Amino acid sequence: MTKYSIGVDLGATNLRVAAIDISGRIMEKTSMPSLFREPYTIINDIVSSIGGLQERFGNHQLMGVGVGVAGFIFLGSGIIADSPNLAGFNNFPIRVELEDRLHVPVFLENDANASALGEKWMGSGCGINNFVLIATGTGIGAGIIAHGKILHGFMGMAGEIGHMTVFPGGSRCGCDNYGCLEQYASGTGVMRMAKDTSLGNLTSAEVYELAITGDITAQQIFVDMGRALGISLAALINLLNFPLYLIGGGLLPAWDLFATTMMEEVHRRSFVFRNTETKIEKALLQGDSCLYGAAYLPLKDLLDSNS
Amino acid sequence: MTKYSIGVDLGATNLRVAAIDISGRIMEKTSMPSLFREPYTIINDIVSSIGGLQERFGNHQLMGVGVGVAGFIFLGSGIIADSPNLAGFNNFPIRVELEDRLHVPVFLENDANASALGEKWMGSGCGINNFVLIATGTGIGAGIIAHGKILHGFMGMAGEIGHMTVFPGGSRCGCDNYGCLEQYASGTGVMRMAKDTSLGNLTSAEVYELAITGDITAQQIFVDMGRALGISLAALINLLNFPLYLIGGGLLPAWDLFATTMMEEVHRRSFVFRNTETKIEKALLQGDSCLYGAAYLPLKDLLDSNS
Repeated sequence: MTKYSIGVDLGATNLRVAAIDISGRIMEKTSMPSLFREPYTIINDIVSSIGGLQERFGNHQLMGVGVGVAGFIFLGSGIIADSPNLAGFNNFPIRVELEDRLHVPVFLENDANASALGEKWMGSGCGINNFVLIATGTGIGAGIIAHGKILHGFMGMAGEIGHMTVFPGGSRCGCDNYGCLEQYASGTGVMRMAKDTSLGNLTSAEVYELAITGDITAQQIFVDMGRALGISLAALINLLNFPLYLIGGGLLPAWDLFATTMMEEVHRRSFVFRNTETKIEKALLQGDSCLYGAAYLPLKDLLDSNS
Repeated sequence: MTKYSIGVDLGATNLRVAAIDISGRIMEKTSMPSLFREPYTIINDIVSSIGGLQERFGNHQLMGVGVGVAGFIFLGSGIIADSPNLAGFNNFPIRVELEDRLHVPVFLENDANASALGEKWMGSGCGINNFVLIATGTGIGAGIIAHGKILHGFMGMAGEIGHMTVFPGGSRCGCDNYGCLEQYASGTGVMRMAKDTSLGNLTSAEVYELAITGDITAQQIFVDMGRALGISLAALINLLNFPLYLIGGGLLPAWDLFATTMMEEVHRRSFVFRNTETKIEKALLQGDSCLYGAAYLPLKDLLDSNS
């Protein structure tokens, strides 16, 4: 009888669910779209996916369900406070909804924080007590591990790297600021930049496809993304002096397109980087970081007591 | 017989020494210039100041000496690694030099970190486990308290807010980057900005004097300082979501000149600020933060065990 948990990655574009055992092995995972779907339809999908897993692994012991959510969460009450990229989920009491229907303990975490926890458990952050995971997806966020623990901030809003100002007079952002990182280094940013060129209305995946098949305009968009990401990363390195910064999330496949200018900016703008052995790496678990981190939440006490 | 310690604030402009008892009361403090003086002359001054205090407080128990240094420190070896603003101190083994002559335990800390510890012990950070102290002096640095402890980073370089990029195409900095915060929001930055106007070669204190007596050009320099500081502060607030950010150091008297634009930028650029009760305040201990924090170092274990 193996102890396991179920991790849910409730992203802006996809909903993913995985059963992961206590040794960190993925037993099964599924994925479905979440874009433009009603909260209760999504909740139904989560519940039925988990039900299916519970049935198939009925001879194992489910320790709980962890959910990584693309949005702010009131951790105390289990309510999604605000989720700009997940329509309809503002003020949604997701923990109560899931616990009432699943009858197992449900744990919540912001998706970038969950990704950082996942990398700490089974990925590039294993054994490292101070690092940052930057999750580039529809938006861009960061999970910060400081002194071995997630840095939540006093309202659970820490890690909002996407709204750091990169270019003070730059593009207007949904948060009312100008020149936010998210306008340049996220799926939303890639789409926005494409729109401002001859490429027009494309998804970030379409811009990526054009770039890898040699379109120079599309390639330039990822060069600009790297520049913005590098400026922010240099600021983080000067501020935190952590040994490791991981880049993960949906835009990670474009690494070869943005990494050169990203590293140029980091080198130019961070004397801390130039004088230390600071590492900037791809997140090892790539698209699965959040799933691992979500699944880690119900197992945390058990794993901590064993270590 | 009162237990006490001696705090030393080894800044780029002034050397300050204080005897502080375990209840946080300053028993005596002295100040002398440190600018353009040789390391061994400064060490002699530190040793003779401490000797004088030891004599006067001979009936009390000295627990050790703490030194807040304007530079990077290898905490393990007690060597000043690099100190751009303290000439001659690069690779200086300050702990051994002082312990050999004083025969008491000597503790070191970066000055911004020491200031944060001072504010946590006896100032505005009392009882607060997550906050940032921004020290505006000759340069500008930050001490970050996260999960109740100083965030050192893996090489002791955390808090280098002065070299965060504020304006990507801005003024060239001594660190080889362009548009660093220090070029706008420090004594050095104020002098640089004055030089670029009709004011010419003035110290930051002289620019301040002109500004408070109504000189519009001098006032504009502090308006610009506030703008740069606000952009960086907004980034910190979005990144850390701490409840409190303190401004301290030698430029604090200019608060009324820079605070308005600083707060405008923070409000405009941080939705985390707009949606939380984040506080931005003057450091309560003002110029004494670092002295208190330095004096706290030798008392730390004793104070922790009593609490």
